Amino acid sequence: MPTFTVFKGNKDGKIVKAQTTKPDLQDDQVLIKITASGLCGTDEHYKSADIVLGHEGAGVVEDLGPNVRFLKKGDRVGWGYQHDSCGHCEWCLTGKEHYCPEREFYGEANLDQGSLASHTVWKESFLFKLPHNMSDEEAAPLMCGGATVFTALHSFGIKSTDRVGIMGVGGLGHLAIQFAARMGCDVVVFSGSDSKKEEAKQLGAKEFVAMKGKKELDIGRKLDALIVTTSANPDWSVMLPILAPTSTIFPLTVSFGDFSIPHLPFIQSGITIQGTVVAARAVHQHMLDFAALHGIKPVIMKFPMTEQGITEAMNTLRDGKMRYRGVLIPQI
Amino acid sequence: MPTFTVFKGNKDGKIVKAQTTKPDLQDDQVLIKITASGLCGTDEHYKSADIVLGHEGAGVVEDLGPNVRFLKKGDRVGWGYQHDSCGHCEWCLTGKEHYCPEREFYGEANLDQGSLASHTVWKESFLFKLPHNMSDEEAAPLMCGGATVFTALHSFGIKSTDRVGIMGVGGLGHLAIQFAARMGCDVVVFSGSDSKKEEAKQLGAKEFVAMKGKKELDIGRKLDALIVTTSANPDWSVMLPILAPTSTIFPLTVSFGDFSIPHLPFIQSGITIQGTVVAARAVHQHMLDFAALHGIKPVIMKFPMTEQGITEAMNTLRDGKMRYRGVLIPQI
Repeated sequence: MPTFTVFKGNKDGKIVKAQTTKPDLQDDQVLIKITASGLCGTDEHYKSADIVLGHEGAGVVEDLGPNVRFLKKGDRVGWGYQHDSCGHCEWCLTGKEHYCPEREFYGEANLDQGSLASHTVWKESFLFKLPHNMSDEEAAPLMCGGATVFTALHSFGIKSTDRVGIMGVGGLGHLAIQFAARMGCDVVVFSGSDSKKEEAKQLGAKEFVAMKGKKELDIGRKLDALIVTTSANPDWSVMLPILAPTSTIFPLTVSFGDFSIPHLPFIQSGITIQGTVVAARAVHQHMLDFAALHGIKPVIMKFPMTEQGITEAMNTLRDGKMRYRGVLIPQI
Repeated sequence: MPTFTVFKGNKDGKIVKAQTTKPDLQDDQVLIKITASGLCGTDEHYKSADIVLGHEGAGVVEDLGPNVRFLKKGDRVGWGYQHDSCGHCEWCLTGKEHYCPEREFYGEANLDQGSLASHTVWKESFLFKLPHNMSDEEAAPLMCGGATVFTALHSFGIKSTDRVGIMGVGGLGHLAIQFAARMGCDVVVFSGSDSKKEEAKQLGAKEFVAMKGKKELDIGRKLDALIVTTSANPDWSVMLPILAPTSTIFPLTVSFGDFSIPHLPFIQSGITIQGTVVAARAVHQHMLDFAALHGIKPVIMKFPMTEQGITEAMNTLRDGKMRYRGVLIPQI
């Protein structure tokens, strides 16, 4: 019986290489040979769990289940955080299947499948064909990081004429800068220090603000939207005064605590605080097409997809030294 | 020189009757003889300030400035929280003048004008003609309380097919129930105890939930929107599980602390937290027309507009005994 290699977390937080049996392909399942996987902060959260890690995948179709309709062997595909949804609820029927109450997300379902592996078995309906002019290793980080920030910029009424703040220049932030700039927005980047200033400007920022020690900011025209990609929420007493009336805050931070903001200033300015995760499939496809059309690419650091390589990539991410997204490459 | 009577706060939190000089009417200013004023929690906040109180006014036009265009003497009018806006900023130009950075709000500008008075001088452009089939004392509470809840229900995508939670049955909540019910929504009311159950159902609630002591709720179909009108924010660990994916929370509470909500559950459900205050003028006019068309009326308790009457009304409100909006009637 054929097997393939997977990399899992374990209770000591160590990356463990294992073999898993290739299942017989059912329904619209597709067997993919993995060529690249992005590394996301969420993988770090799951490294103590006995599950196959990775949810920013790219690879090549190797085999097809009986009901696959659109893909063929050899097609290059990507996939992300979502494995499945029910297909019949209000959210599935209105293009919001990522909020389906029965959605299957990374870390919650299909724990034996992931993108840190030699192969994976995935439903055709949650796979995306990769554009021709986008390499697998450039595509992988778009599958969660890219999808998440694109959705914020795309699906909640941000306009090309808006002034958009991006807080944090990391895996998500450096993609958000590029997307927002190509959408025509006036992009202001907020970062701890000046160390990423030149790169942020090359990526498309019109203005760069080093936050450290600042109790008050003056950026001229206020922000119509603020996308927070840092690992902690900002000091709202500093940020609220530079948010325009009726602006929108996107707290993309994965934080296990509370989201807290001064109540009266936020409601009196008619501010929207918008929860959002990953992307609906239609938006995910738009994201890939938009990135391909405009040559938007993640800045990546490559690591070998081995126990040691994954551990090193996770350490680099944790130490804040990733520039800007780690990509694991299977060793043939 | 003619004078008129006003009621002000003072540093000891006492209501003080005073006389003020009627100014010469400039530009589009209108002199109004007041016939009724609602009493709002915000008036309580300002009772220690040396300003004329009241911002839910109804009255009759008595005199016109040189540039008044649409009103004539004898017209019945109402007015609310907003006195003026700049007229040329993005928000003024897009029907959101209540977020104009130079807006003039109650308690912040024109501190010598208010609705707890015998007369007031107000700009025509921030006055609303009252529908024929609506009495002055019924109109007054709509000018802030009604406008605030109507905007939440009207301007942020709530649909007639939505299930809408109204938390709190008070000055705002009892109007929100009526508006939401007439809009066709499936209205679920959340209150501390069962004491207001029958009235809430008469106002249009399909379901009533007494919250006291409940750590977990099961309401069947989850809420697409939740309008919070209580004086404190709810326990989100109880409410979040009954909010549908992509639902919207409207924290209308006037709270001087932080708004806090568990971060991950809110973003992972794609929930929107929508700040909103009062109403834009176009929406305010729709609110009056809608209320008149459907016979939506506040439930009121009347008090004489005297130092003692206002004090008694404030005490009644503070003690949680108002059913459901106090209205002060000038004593001729």
